Amino acid sequence: MIKNRLFTPGPTDVPPEVLNEMAKPVFHHRTAQFRDMFAAVNDGLKKIYKTSNDVLTIAGSGTAGMEAAIACAVPRDKKVLISNGGKFGERWVKVAKVYGLDVDEVTLEWGTALTADVVKEKLATGQYGAVITVYSETSTATACDMQAIAEVVRDTDALLIVDAITALGVLPLETDAWGVDIVASGSQKAFMLPPGLAMLSVSEKAWKVIDTIEAPCFFLNLKAYRKSIAANDTPYTPAVTLLRGLKVSVDMINAIGIEKVWSRTAILAKALRTAAEALGLKVCSQTPSDSVTAIYLPEGIGDDIRKNLRTKYGCSVAGGQDGWKGKVIRVNHMGYVDPLDTIGLIAAIEYTLADMGADVQIGKGTAAAVEVLKDWA
Amino acid sequence: MIKNRLFTPGPTDVPPEVLNEMAKPVFHHRTAQFRDMFAAVNDGLKKIYKTSNDVLTIAGSGTAGMEAAIACAVPRDKKVLISNGGKFGERWVKVAKVYGLDVDEVTLEWGTALTADVVKEKLATGQYGAVITVYSETSTATACDMQAIAEVVRDTDALLIVDAITALGVLPLETDAWGVDIVASGSQKAFMLPPGLAMLSVSEKAWKVIDTIEAPCFFLNLKAYRKSIAANDTPYTPAVTLLRGLKVSVDMINAIGIEKVWSRTAILAKALRTAAEALGLKVCSQTPSDSVTAIYLPEGIGDDIRKNLRTKYGCSVAGGQDGWKGKVIRVNHMGYVDPLDTIGLIAAIEYTLADMGADVQIGKGTAAAVEVLKDWA
Repeated sequence: MIKNRLFTPGPTDVPPEVLNEMAKPVFHHRTAQFRDMFAAVNDGLKKIYKTSNDVLTIAGSGTAGMEAAIACAVPRDKKVLISNGGKFGERWVKVAKVYGLDVDEVTLEWGTALTADVVKEKLATGQYGAVITVYSETSTATACDMQAIAEVVRDTDALLIVDAITALGVLPLETDAWGVDIVASGSQKAFMLPPGLAMLSVSEKAWKVIDTIEAPCFFLNLKAYRKSIAANDTPYTPAVTLLRGLKVSVDMINAIGIEKVWSRTAILAKALRTAAEALGLKVCSQTPSDSVTAIYLPEGIGDDIRKNLRTKYGCSVAGGQDGWKGKVIRVNHMGYVDPLDTIGLIAAIEYTLADMGADVQIGKGTAAAVEVLKDWA
Repeated sequence: MIKNRLFTPGPTDVPPEVLNEMAKPVFHHRTAQFRDMFAAVNDGLKKIYKTSNDVLTIAGSGTAGMEAAIACAVPRDKKVLISNGGKFGERWVKVAKVYGLDVDEVTLEWGTALTADVVKEKLATGQYGAVITVYSETSTATACDMQAIAEVVRDTDALLIVDAITALGVLPLETDAWGVDIVASGSQKAFMLPPGLAMLSVSEKAWKVIDTIEAPCFFLNLKAYRKSIAANDTPYTPAVTLLRGLKVSVDMINAIGIEKVWSRTAILAKALRTAAEALGLKVCSQTPSDSVTAIYLPEGIGDDIRKNLRTKYGCSVAGGQDGWKGKVIRVNHMGYVDPLDTIGLIAAIEYTLADMGADVQIGKGTAAAVEVLKDWA
């Protein structure tokens, strides 16, 4: 029997423990039962976020979380620096423009990341109220040096707003210690849930700015979430089923320990990169993210590879977008995925490339990955 | 995250499609809804059994099915030949003795199988009313040449009663064409269900014998099942939820085609045997079954390997029984298991053996399996 395996960089595979929890009968949310559960979720999220501040949860996708941050926390009297190195950076520029913000867009070649040096130079002008950047750009499988960027921003008046949707719970991220002001994440990545929740941590520095802004939005107004969470509640109807699932997944992550989850994810990514190299394939990114890997397809192999992988081996991977369309595959390392999955996928990629006529030595990539992954557990 | 993976030779992994079907609300069984579903199950079972006779389903484990056959279909005025090459052969001898049958037990060295020559020689005496044998002995991972044995029995008056619990739906078995009189199977093997159902095909030749016997049993009396199945029904309360699951799994198997399932299973088993050889490990059986593989553990490695495989890599395999206890592991190839699972398991076995101090070259077995499995799909 062929098993279906989700290797897309969101949605990621959902553990049976989470699915079972979400299959339980719905209960009403204006109850002590809900508030107790939500309080436990929020405590668990703080550990994963590595913050002592509240982590707000919105019933919405990751985009809703980033829009809330952009609408509520970017000062109107200054410029906002936004890095655009892929589809998500591009989206945050669009959102900021909808809100009439004065956007300074730093356009990056796909596969490269914003550097701390660029941020430092810009902020030195004193013209910026906020920096918005993507920690791990899903479309290009590229991560920036977030710690270095945070180091540059933290001693200025500007806020650092980070799209950590494919980074939180996967890549090292010390929200408080690094001084990241807003960290946005989503449910369908490292949290191993279906899509439908956005989570944001907000620093004291950010709240001070938010309090000065009359944000032109209602559902996404962070002030409402701050007020409610003080009573372990939500301002509008919460997605109770997803929150129940989140309780389970947060507990699973904290039982392992977030640092261990980071190092395990890193080794899965390293195994795939090493396998690609062994097969003579090139990793797309100059600074690859450990949450998702993008690999250039060999000459003569197109996007059909995804259909073949799915049909013959049950493996779903993502393709390329825009200029990378038909030229790359992207593979997830976040959440409910382990070395055995990764090894199996690499074998399936080898079989499929060979079936399609590519010049690859079956087993070479798999063996290289097996060697790397011996240090995983 | 570590995933739990069931590689025990029963219970085997249950597909989500089957789990979801079984999670639906229970309906009453004395209804047209039940009879329609049961009729569809029975049609599907005939295809997998390769028989035009009815396949009876009992709410019970595989042992209940074999007991029904032994109690109802073994002539009392003749001897019954029973092969005992492992824990299950041993059990059928016990059952036959409970019913006071005149048992001629052929004791086999573990890892060897009953041969057609032995059966031929015994039957030539004219003293036997039935031959009971295990097609695939789970405890020793050993298969006999069932076609050759059937060839010998079919032209005699004796019935051939086969424990195909870890064979039906996995190893080639042409019930009608080979003339096998009773074929017993169970739900928790190739049918990818939880335990709780036993299925039996019964030939015309067998029914003629059954009609001459006043079987000293009620629930397991095959005559009651024959009468009910004519109206697509069961004599006693059926395990409705398991039957719903069986409908889904039977459809899954028939969508692929039973011959394809046989050949796919064979290649999974071959991959593991090849990997074992590459790692310098010895397969236990002289005539290995393709449904389950038993491998001798290297010197100095004991049964702890199973706990280590489960704890560190989420892989459950079976150990040895009786004289093989602590000396072997047994790995499933039946049902909902595919090349990617098998490759991952082999890597996990390599890691675990190396962790435990065995002299194995990590990746060597995996690469050997990857090579074999390229012909699977």
